[in-house]
Parts: sequence; structure tokens; C-alpha cells
Amino acid sequence: MARTLRLITIIAEADVADHLLRDLAALGVRGWNVVPGEGVWRRALEAEGPTDFDGPTVRIETVARAETAEAVMARLAAHWFPRYAVFAWVSDATVLRPGKYA
Amino acid sequence: MARTLRLITIIAEADVADHLLRDLAALGVRGWNVVPGEGVWRRALEAEGPTDFDGPTVRIETVARAETAEAVMARLAAHWFPRYAVFAWVSDATVLRPGKYA
Amino acid sequence: MARTLRLITIIAEADVADHLLRDLAALGVRGWNVVPGEGVWRRALEAEGPTDFDGPTVRIETVARAETAEAVMARLAAHWFPRYAVFAWVSDATVLRPGKYA
Repeated sequence: MARTLRLITIIAEADVADHLLRDLAALGVRGWNVVPGEGVWRRALEAEGPTDFDGPTVRIETVARAETAEAVMARLAAHWFPRYAVFAWVSDATVLRPGKYA
Repeated sequence: MARTLRLITIIAEADVADHLLRDLAALGVRGWNVVPGEGVWRRALEAEGPTDFDGPTVRIETVARAETAEAVMARLAAHWFPRYAVFAWVSDATVLRPGKYA
Repeated sequence: MARTLRLITIIAEADVADHLLRDLAALGVRGWNVVPGEGVWRRALEAEGPTDFDGPTVRIETVARAETAEAVMARLAAHWFPRYAVFAWVSDATVLRPGKYA
């Protein structure tokens, strides 16, 4: 049976990948896929103000219920965006067998 | 001219990639992009019950008409989800030149 | 604060990646993530008619305002689609801190 859930996509500097995935797991995220890449974007770090990030990245994606997606985005905004080169977005995803997803 | 089609994203254990792509082609999928990655998720295999997948993946994506997307999801649910570490979702994608897509 | 923006995804033959990224930057795109992959699809080149592309790709994605996304798609349709193996789609993406995005 099809059900619409939320797809969370996170692009992060590669160095913080393991730490970030542990944090997601603690918020109830039960699975993900990670793809290496290269990214360029302007970040607004608390300590340094706007600086440009240009380097290796991980692209993390996970499909989750709306509540989990909101918890993840709130955590990213509070803890990750001010300190690291991380950005993220959420979109709709229609899945079969939604029981598989957190 | 812009037209909204369906984006199908499939994450699969890397070992089944070639077999899965041949299956998609048989359903009328005419093109795709494949990206290697690493995934972790819980799968519910017919023969073994719930087990954890943790290993190399392929991320396959293709843009298709709604009918093709439904045929692909039905095939995945019937044949692939019970046997292999595969999950998938569908979302909207607005393309230019829709004539290019199956 | 959450805001819905546009996610642009471009799959292109790997050889044109640098040129394409410079073109995006000239249109006001301020950041992106790039992931290497392998793609297969039918392209309709101006000079040769329909031919099959099968080879290394880059998957470029960027989150942008609607006007920037429209400018990018128009540029792709006018300049890139007729000459190179490039395809692209646009979808909705809800972000936090939209001020980070062009």
C-alpha cells in the first residue's frame, strides 16, 4: 500500500559524517543511504560568520515519518548548521510498505 | 514545455544492480543514472524475516510517466522487496522536453 | 523558519561538468553538490538526432529560488540539451534558513 512520507536529504562536509549519522540514529532514524561527492556553498558559521565551503561531502538521505523529519530538521538547525558545513531539505516521497520506515 | 512526471528512486544492495536494471528496462524504463554508496536499513525478507542490511549500495533514479512508475513500484513490491535489500520511493519532477522520458 | 524552494537536479555527461558549473554560477547559482555516477539515456542532439548516451556522469543538485530555477531550466533547454547529454528536473524542497540559498 502506498503512503506519502518525508524524504530528508542532508549534504554535509565529509569529516562530520559519522558523528552526524550517530546523531540521526539517536533521533529515531532507522536507515539511510550515503553517497560521497564534492560540494561548494556559502555557510554561516556562528564562530566565523559567512565563509565558503568547497570540499568533499557526503549526501545522506533517509525516508521518515513527518514527526521524525521535523525532529531531524530542528536538531540540524540548532546544533549542526551553526557549527559545520551542513545543509538539508525535506520533500514528499511516496513509498510502498511504509512499515519499513521510521 | 514543462510537464510534471514521476521520479523513481531505488536504493539497492550493489550486488543486484545489473539484474535490477535489466528488469527495469523490461518494464519500459528507457534511461537512468546510477550512483554508488553505502546504506544501512532494516529489510523484511520473505525467507529470513527482519534483518539489517549494512553494505555497498547503488542509488538508481529515473524519470518516467505515471503508468511506468506504477508498474515499476508494483514489480519491486512483488519481486524485489521480499528477496533483496531494496527500497524505493516516487516523487514529482517537473521536466522540460518530456518527450525524452519513458 | 521553513520555506519551500526549488531543488534542481541535473544529470550530465562527466566531460562537461566544469563548463556547466561555470554556466550555473553565471546564472546566480551560489552552491551545489556534485556526485559521480554512470548513466544511460537517449538524447536528442541537434547535430546528430537521437543517439544513446551510456557513460560516466555527474549528478549536480542545487536548491534555489523559483526565479533562479526557471532561469537555469531555460538556459539548459536553449544551450545544453541540444548539444550535450544533459537532462534535468525540478521539484519542491522545504528548507530551514532559506537565506542561505540563491
